[in-house]
Amino acid sequence: MEESLLNAENLPSLDIETVGQANIKSPLEDVRFVDDSEKVVLYSHYDHLKKFIEKDQELPAFERAGPRRNLYFEPSKLNCGIVTCGGLCPGLNDVIRTVVLSLIWEYGVRKVYGFRYGYNGLTNNPYCEPLILTPELVEDIHLRGGDILSSSRGPQNVEEMVDNLVKRDIGLLFVIGGDGTLHGAAEMAQAIKRRNLKISIVGIPKTIDNDIYGVERTFGFSTAVEAARTAINVAHEEAKGAWDGVGLVKLMGRDSGFISAYATLANSDVNFCFIPEVPLVLDGEHGFLKSLEKRLDRKHHALIVVAEGVGQSLANQKDMSGNVKRQDIGILLKTKIVDYFKNIDKPLVLKYIDPSYTIRGCPANSFDSAFCLMLGQNAVHAGMAGKTNMIAGFWNRYFTHVPISLAVMERKKVNLQGDLWQTVIQTTGQAKKKPVRPF
Amino acid sequence: MEESLLNAENLPSLDIETVGQANIKSPLEDVRFVDDSEKVVLYSHYDHLKKFIEKDQELPAFERAGPRRNLYFEPSKLNCGIVTCGGLCPGLNDVIRTVVLSLIWEYGVRKVYGFRYGYNGLTNNPYCEPLILTPELVEDIHLRGGDILSSSRGPQNVEEMVDNLVKRDIGLLFVIGGDGTLHGAAEMAQAIKRRNLKISIVGIPKTIDNDIYGVERTFGFSTAVEAARTAINVAHEEAKGAWDGVGLVKLMGRDSGFISAYATLANSDVNFCFIPEVPLVLDGEHGFLKSLEKRLDRKHHALIVVAEGVGQSLANQKDMSGNVKRQDIGILLKTKIVDYFKNIDKPLVLKYIDPSYTIRGCPANSFDSAFCLMLGQNAVHAGMAGKTNMIAGFWNRYFTHVPISLAVMERKKVNLQGDLWQTVIQTTGQAKKKPVRPF
Amino acid sequence: MEESLLNAENLPSLDIETVGQANIKSPLEDVRFVDDSEKVVLYSHYDHLKKFIEKDQELPAFERAGPRRNLYFEPSKLNCGIVTCGGLCPGLNDVIRTVVLSLIWEYGVRKVYGFRYGYNGLTNNPYCEPLILTPELVEDIHLRGGDILSSSRGPQNVEEMVDNLVKRDIGLLFVIGGDGTLHGAAEMAQAIKRRNLKISIVGIPKTIDNDIYGVERTFGFSTAVEAARTAINVAHEEAKGAWDGVGLVKLMGRDSGFISAYATLANSDVNFCFIPEVPLVLDGEHGFLKSLEKRLDRKHHALIVVAEGVGQSLANQKDMSGNVKRQDIGILLKTKIVDYFKNIDKPLVLKYIDPSYTIRGCPANSFDSAFCLMLGQNAVHAGMAGKTNMIAGFWNRYFTHVPISLAVMERKKVNLQGDLWQTVIQTTGQAKKKPVRPF
Amino acid sequence: MEESLLNAENLPSLDIETVGQANIKSPLEDVRFVDDSEKVVLYSHYDHLKKFIEKDQELPAFERAGPRRNLYFEPSKLNCGIVTCGGLCPGLNDVIRTVVLSLIWEYGVRKVYGFRYGYNGLTNNPYCEPLILTPELVEDIHLRGGDILSSSRGPQNVEEMVDNLVKRDIGLLFVIGGDGTLHGAAEMAQAIKRRNLKISIVGIPKTIDNDIYGVERTFGFSTAVEAARTAINVAHEEAKGAWDGVGLVKLMGRDSGFISAYATLANSDVNFCFIPEVPLVLDGEHGFLKSLEKRLDRKHHALIVVAEGVGQSLANQKDMSGNVKRQDIGILLKTKIVDYFKNIDKPLVLKYIDPSYTIRGCPANSFDSAFCLMLGQNAVHAGMAGKTNMIAGFWNRYFTHVPISLAVMERKKVNLQGDLWQTVIQTTGQAKKKPVRPF
Repeated sequence: MEESLLNAENLPSLDIETVGQANIKSPLEDVRFVDDSEKVVLYSHYDHLKKFIEKDQELPAFERAGPRRNLYFEPSKLNCGIVTCGGLCPGLNDVIRTVVLSLIWEYGVRKVYGFRYGYNGLTNNPYCEPLILTPELVEDIHLRGGDILSSSRGPQNVEEMVDNLVKRDIGLLFVIGGDGTLHGAAEMAQAIKRRNLKISIVGIPKTIDNDIYGVERTFGFSTAVEAARTAINVAHEEAKGAWDGVGLVKLMGRDSGFISAYATLANSDVNFCFIPEVPLVLDGEHGFLKSLEKRLDRKHHALIVVAEGVGQSLANQKDMSGNVKRQDIGILLKTKIVDYFKNIDKPLVLKYIDPSYTIRGCPANSFDSAFCLMLGQNAVHAGMAGKTNMIAGFWNRYFTHVPISLAVMERKKVNLQGDLWQTVIQTTGQAKKKPVRPF
Repeated sequence: MEESLLNAENLPSLDIETVGQANIKSPLEDVRFVDDSEKVVLYSHYDHLKKFIEKDQELPAFERAGPRRNLYFEPSKLNCGIVTCGGLCPGLNDVIRTVVLSLIWEYGVRKVYGFRYGYNGLTNNPYCEPLILTPELVEDIHLRGGDILSSSRGPQNVEEMVDNLVKRDIGLLFVIGGDGTLHGAAEMAQAIKRRNLKISIVGIPKTIDNDIYGVERTFGFSTAVEAARTAINVAHEEAKGAWDGVGLVKLMGRDSGFISAYATLANSDVNFCFIPEVPLVLDGEHGFLKSLEKRLDRKHHALIVVAEGVGQSLANQKDMSGNVKRQDIGILLKTKIVDYFKNIDKPLVLKYIDPSYTIRGCPANSFDSAFCLMLGQNAVHAGMAGKTNMIAGFWNRYFTHVPISLAVMERKKVNLQGDLWQTVIQTTGQAKKKPVRPF
Repeated sequence: MEESLLNAENLPSLDIETVGQANIKSPLEDVRFVDDSEKVVLYSHYDHLKKFIEKDQELPAFERAGPRRNLYFEPSKLNCGIVTCGGLCPGLNDVIRTVVLSLIWEYGVRKVYGFRYGYNGLTNNPYCEPLILTPELVEDIHLRGGDILSSSRGPQNVEEMVDNLVKRDIGLLFVIGGDGTLHGAAEMAQAIKRRNLKISIVGIPKTIDNDIYGVERTFGFSTAVEAARTAINVAHEEAKGAWDGVGLVKLMGRDSGFISAYATLANSDVNFCFIPEVPLVLDGEHGFLKSLEKRLDRKHHALIVVAEGVGQSLANQKDMSGNVKRQDIGILLKTKIVDYFKNIDKPLVLKYIDPSYTIRGCPANSFDSAFCLMLGQNAVHAGMAGKTNMIAGFWNRYFTHVPISLAVMERKKVNLQGDLWQTVIQTTGQAKKKPVRPF
Repeated sequence: MEESLLNAENLPSLDIETVGQANIKSPLEDVRFVDDSEKVVLYSHYDHLKKFIEKDQELPAFERAGPRRNLYFEPSKLNCGIVTCGGLCPGLNDVIRTVVLSLIWEYGVRKVYGFRYGYNGLTNNPYCEPLILTPELVEDIHLRGGDILSSSRGPQNVEEMVDNLVKRDIGLLFVIGGDGTLHGAAEMAQAIKRRNLKISIVGIPKTIDNDIYGVERTFGFSTAVEAARTAINVAHEEAKGAWDGVGLVKLMGRDSGFISAYATLANSDVNFCFIPEVPLVLDGEHGFLKSLEKRLDRKHHALIVVAEGVGQSLANQKDMSGNVKRQDIGILLKTKIVDYFKNIDKPLVLKYIDPSYTIRGCPANSFDSAFCLMLGQNAVHAGMAGKTNMIAGFWNRYFTHVPISLAVMERKKVNLQGDLWQTVIQTTGQAKKKPVRPF
């Protein structure tokens, strides 16, 4: 829904790599197989399509996901691995469970390793040995938040990780993670290719911020918005509970403001929503502080949502060694507001809420659970067919295969001309010179 | 995501009617206006698009929704009305609130009437006078489930309803309802046209079953699935809590099985999911009862989801006057199961759960609330521009205008070849001759 | 809070039996031991106490629960068992987990058996072998509803069950169940005594209906009320959503109306609340049907809660063999209402909701989880000290030991003169001849 | 349940003051009236009662709450007021609603004023005029968190507030607030007495911390524990999600640790729970930091809960003017932990969660809603009978009248020898020299 516009000019190839020719008959019965030739077009806005049609060019399109009639891997001889990297995200356990059940029950693969603590688990000296993931072990894991495999941040030596895949005779590795993790996955895929190994690397995009390029939505996002709304609702009550009360909520969103924008629409009492995509102007006649003053003069309470990645020009300062040090925009904004109103001698009651990890450590809601299931199964189908260096995605009503090279090109951002942001500014009235909103 | 396939052969025109030329400047500032020429293509599967491209035909496409630079109605002179018909649906109050706030705050219309108790409120002898909907009155209504306007079922005299719109000098009527309601809206639009009146009728599709044709998803559906999952989770615990325990859950879905299918994926412990789109076969070696017997022999508990519209050939009986009388499939299935196992002398413990209205009377979740907001605002934009005989929709990542004639052509159904149903049968294993699922 | 009055006249002894003298030093450190001489008085209303004080009699009092300085059982040589009987109840897994962790971590007992499927698991031919309950196995079970041990209904041969305790060398058995189950537990304790065995039977009262005599509140009740309120809220929205709309909710409560009464207060929009303790009068000028008619004439919507045990004089009918057959009061009441209004030619829209098992199959809320933990630990402390033929209870702000003989004397009922019911009738106005309630 | 021990030595009188003799017949019908002679004893532990019985002394006892047969105030001539002070608390709107409905529907009083923004609303220059509270206005307010009257902190001039009660002809004022607020209420009651006015002041205790002396539990507490558990659950997942992961949660509780203790039991994965009643020892062989190190060495994750009032000796520092400045114990503890592990060169991953206002701004759960209803009705009954300088309480299964003088004597604290804290230390194992807990 976010209308992230993929720029046609510098699109990479959308073809999907494989580790070899798929010529083993799938054991799946009674399913509708999807052919590699089925494609889902990137653009659904006619104006974008016309540019290609008029020049008689192929429309850019993703390979459609789904079970393939022929597999590359012989299930009974195949060992698989799963690794999760980066921060928690609602639905992680749903995805792990689905991948395990689909591999073992549907395809009958030999063994599934669950590497522990992210890429660390693929190194020569991991914190822990991998888990052997059986249906019994994963049976109930979707009922809880968190990640039964645990995670870690940061890269590891790519060759060493590939060595460990070889050591355990892994043919198919599922990498669940965000931008940085997928970069690592791509490097592994390249190293595997250089060494002429037959190991597939299939990614499943995980980002609480919904900021993976080329993917319409990612799992856990809807759950995170629900938790964020709860915090905003409370801030609204706190703001209304005091004379000149201000509720200020900081939400996740380092580079992209999807959580803040959606949660603003889900609450719809928010007066100011700040996202990283829009420069934050504090001062001046049309700056935020003056607008807040006018708002309080009129209504005596106000509700503000700010994404953590906002205003890095304000927040960043260089430390003694000259390194940029990220400041907490929530705390900074709180201070700026309090100081401003102290200066103009209008005391206010500011209640600051930072729900922090609470929006990502909870179990997935139904919508995300169902999405995780479909996404995870499609990742398995792709992997069994020998696809590699790709992620499982969703686009224009279809599940898709997306080359990692596209997914990591850049972060998906809120389109400031799109429905989402346009509705935010219409609802909050924050862009108006004379905001009319009376609540 | 449901891949409802719109059949290209008998598509009606997707052009949107208007009550007159829009030549009044919109009062909206700082927004990105959408032009009537912007379109969103119906098909995103390349194979469908190719058929048109190869013949040099226009691609079928919806008009894109959004604020228009020019309006048909002069806001300060315009009275609007809202009417809600049919059953409750999570998000109804969100939609009403958004429409009111958008009309009054953004556009500055004169007055908004809330007609009470569905189309009854538009008759000459309504149960109640309409409410005057002000921002103050609607401020907090989104916090609760239900419908502040109340509703009723069934049609009313179309000419009489139009008379009442004229009597109150209504220029723009928002009709929130499902299939039957939209039929009524279309008839009103036609009567208005015949009488050469300048009244716009804009629909906002409401269906707990997500079964409006030509609309990718409808509000309240995600909330309903959440509530349905809760019931299924309990049935699972009840089934596991007893030796040969069977949990049977009946869910809404008279014609389409979207709720049952999604809730099955969201729980993913379901062993059998029955939807109206698939004939239910009870008897025989591959029939459901034998499959259930095998399942219980192996695992001693089972979980079944059935949509209310399933098996009408079984359920329907003629009453004394020869009229078809719908039976309750849940009760019927319960009886069939208990009788079968009594006959084969294998007692079981069946726990039947019918969450009934609890899945539709609750407040909207965040995802639905945000969606209601965007949908409602787009309906207002369309109405102010003089569009009529249409509904606000969503398709391929864009909000759209859909002619009512398309929306009421038929019910949207679960595509049995699509991702949703294919994932259901892979997850439950219900289609397999030798189901392997060990849980 | 329910003020169930324990009748002083026919109180049994409140002394607690033991299997032998406790003379093994407890391994617990840094805890505040409770002495057997510590007592918690039954009555807190001064009028009740005065009767005893004036006659210089001892005040009736429960033994206070808590860790004992001396144990009867040597932990390192002790095998324990847990068995759960009857229907599901939120918190069952919390209790099982706490008992296991307390036995193994705190006391260091040798082994804990989890008998499967209720008393069936203690017979010579159980459905399943018992689980060996380890800390690892129970680590996360409190996150889900249901019962990891599963359950069954009905009694089993007492001598056979004792034989199986002996066979497995069980010294301490925890029996989690309601009225019938505790009867069985008492019989086991008596058989053990007759055989001169050294086996303790400690009960933990489980009843979704909160109807255990001599216990102020039981686990799961608060969670059940929450789920019941959700259903009532929906029924309220449905009732208001239609002209002459009636929401009718049937709740659990076979003998006692605690769930219905509390849920009525928790929603407080209920107009009529019917519980088993109060005869239901349908007909006549002051009967329910006439009152409902007046209510609808005035407000055009109504909300009704009925406990399943209500009106058995209406509902019971004899079947062909002369056996009393319980009818479903919900369905019966629905029929009576619909028929009455049909007869007086005032059509209404009745929405019937039976949340059934959904109020008992969910995970425990925080309040119940904490209560389960304290209750379970106190049951363990009692058992280790050799107490037997008793249950862990709570009364007047203290955890207590309650002889099973007291607990099974009769069902706890809603005191019609007490705060709970008096508040219900004041809130609903249902007892008034001229109900004034305008909502 | 918390066993707060009321020290018999310095108990004030438990008699309840009145503004005059109650000799107007109550309009309530069909209720069970409570007589002023009915009392609820303070002590339920027999050892405490014995001390009085042996000396033939009266047992200390609260007056029992409930409707009185005779009123002091003539309802049709009575104006009432409600004022809410201090921070938000779940259930505030439930209480306001119940008081209004009970006064107007049950008793038929003339008018109910809702003073805005706490005691400020009773001053000569309030921010706002009071609301006129009607049944229609309060109908749905219990569905939301917050406080429709809004609040403020700090005292106001007592004589001025009494002047304003007189000015508006208020006979009965309900004051909803905590310790400081009740001090103010007592001062008003004394000023009223000095002036020989006939105005009743009835308090309803509000404290998210459950720390009102002489009251077994206060509304909103159970809801707050639920929200606190959610944050702890997330912290547990974050801790387990990383190697040497530590989850640190700061909860409300300035003087008393009830929320932290209960939430610890409700989650029961907590390893360290710190409350204000227990000195926090960071350093040394048995200090917290060394214990945490051992825990991480063994299990590589840990979960810590700390109440905001903990360790004020550590946290307090004097600012430049010599004033004590409270530091944030959460941030301080985080810093201490990170520094300690940096010093011993064992890097850890600490995730800090401060749910702050989110635990108090949400709507009341069912348990609290029902409690609010009973408490509020009893406050109304007391006020109508002319009781004054008292609060509505709950003790030993009965609703009670508590003199404000008792309630403000001191804060209720967690009894370190009682069931609650003893269960916490047994569950966490934090007091043990050799903690055995393996999770």
